Amino acid sequence: MKCIVCKKEAVIKLPSHHSAFCVEHFLQFFLRRVDKAIRRYRMFHANAKILVAVSGGKDSLVLWSSLLELGYDASGIFINLGIEPNSDIAEDKVKQFAKENNAQLHIVDVKDYLGATIPEVNKIVKKPICSVCGMVRRYILNSEAKRLGYSVLATGHNLDDEAATLLGNTLHWYEGYLKRQYPTLGEEQGFVRKVKPLVLCSEKETLAYAVIRQIDFDSERCPFSRGATSQFYKHILNLIEHDMPGTKQNFLCEFFRKMSGNIYNSSEKDKLTPCEICGYPTSAGKKCSFCRLKEQIGGETYMSLLEKVV
Amino acid sequence: MKCIVCKKEAVIKLPSHHSAFCVEHFLQFFLRRVDKAIRRYRMFHANAKILVAVSGGKDSLVLWSSLLELGYDASGIFINLGIEPNSDIAEDKVKQFAKENNAQLHIVDVKDYLGATIPEVNKIVKKPICSVCGMVRRYILNSEAKRLGYSVLATGHNLDDEAATLLGNTLHWYEGYLKRQYPTLGEEQGFVRKVKPLVLCSEKETLAYAVIRQIDFDSERCPFSRGATSQFYKHILNLIEHDMPGTKQNFLCEFFRKMSGNIYNSSEKDKLTPCEICGYPTSAGKKCSFCRLKEQIGGETYMSLLEKVV
Repeated sequence: MKCIVCKKEAVIKLPSHHSAFCVEHFLQFFLRRVDKAIRRYRMFHANAKILVAVSGGKDSLVLWSSLLELGYDASGIFINLGIEPNSDIAEDKVKQFAKENNAQLHIVDVKDYLGATIPEVNKIVKKPICSVCGMVRRYILNSEAKRLGYSVLATGHNLDDEAATLLGNTLHWYEGYLKRQYPTLGEEQGFVRKVKPLVLCSEKETLAYAVIRQIDFDSERCPFSRGATSQFYKHILNLIEHDMPGTKQNFLCEFFRKMSGNIYNSSEKDKLTPCEICGYPTSAGKKCSFCRLKEQIGGETYMSLLEKVV
Repeated sequence: MKCIVCKKEAVIKLPSHHSAFCVEHFLQFFLRRVDKAIRRYRMFHANAKILVAVSGGKDSLVLWSSLLELGYDASGIFINLGIEPNSDIAEDKVKQFAKENNAQLHIVDVKDYLGATIPEVNKIVKKPICSVCGMVRRYILNSEAKRLGYSVLATGHNLDDEAATLLGNTLHWYEGYLKRQYPTLGEEQGFVRKVKPLVLCSEKETLAYAVIRQIDFDSERCPFSRGATSQFYKHILNLIEHDMPGTKQNFLCEFFRKMSGNIYNSSEKDKLTPCEICGYPTSAGKKCSFCRLKEQIGGETYMSLLEKVV
């Protein structure tokens, strides 16, 4: 197997691109894919002030690394979720990366924001913790990006993540989610601009980039994520991809090209109003989901609930 | 496992309906599903003159059987494709069914219509034979339904068939096909009204109905259909269904409910014009695909081509 650029021995084969690359040309290929996504989906300009949401996992650190490599002004933000020992290990990896790359890093403790760690929330709240945790993280990232004056918030969702989400949204035809599934969501109604520059890079490619660049990422899976449906959808898409290479990327990119924002005759946006407590845009009523969660865990019964569960 | 209606021993378990049935209540359930599809998708009225496209396989004979059982005026039409020995075996089964049920049957020979059998076409034409054969059958069925004065043409596509087609159309976001995927297509521009009354009945349910009713169907698979992608998509959907019972039906029915005919802002119909030879509506140019195929296999080189291949 030879590199299709220089004919040296290849280190990675990419059937969906009918390609194989040596180390040097894979890195070039990967950065070009990131650059292509940034341009194709009009994510940001060369002088944008970008905040990268970093979890310590491979995707977000690869995103940060590649944005810095491409010459962007990219700082990181890490939310310590209070999941022991994972969160502290991840925080150390992120700090180390920032130091080595001489990049600015902001650290937020979920307990300072919410009054409880994610494991504590999990014991108090009956809803699936992954969706609650996702809501909390989106809230904190948006609030911090605005507070710190960043023009764009970048997350490390890769091609496999987005295709799995699209498969789930499509199997159930979740209209609202399909309407909002796009690699760039412009600033609107209190939301900062959000982008996913790894959307054209597969999980395999992202992992290969991390390994080749010797990025010391946190490979522990979140203890709460077992049996997540996103893993099942990824598995299904990998079965399809095995028989029909390129289908995963085609599924996602053709959706963006043909369908996104063009699905419904009644293409009205969801009506959002500012939360009466914090001002965050919400469709959930007078108070946003974050403030309601905060009330629930910080209310009169908070201590008694904690006593029950600790 | 007990029948959910009468608590007798059940013969079939249907996880997607959280149900199990004895023989009697399964037949009742099945016919209600057919009736529900006819009503939900406004397929036809009680006195419609229905032509059922029968191949001799389980789905089309079950469709014919259930329409007769529900009291509809349903005749059959069988196209002998000239695939030896399959086509003659299938024709015998269809004739037998018609005789036993005292129902009217029309038989058409593809060679009379086209000038060649499907195996002969396969040797002459370079395109995938399944798509050519589908085009030929749709052409003949439409033409015969109109010529014989039927108001509606019914085909035996079941839930699994339609969900597999939808998955394929969705994975590639084939706009034109998605736009036309609906269980009822009204009469328009030279096309007879087309309906799929088994669209709410799964493959398993249809097979069970055939077995219980002792319908002597042709279980041979077409020799040309090996490795068909529809089989692959069915396999994928069955894997999903196994983990998430009900997803297959939800995927299809929610598509019909939310998306169908509502997908595109530019919801213009494909522009069809009558074929200059036969008058059949076509988007393929001046001549329709059927007449072009007929020319190709019946032209000057027809005999020489046949001599080469026979």
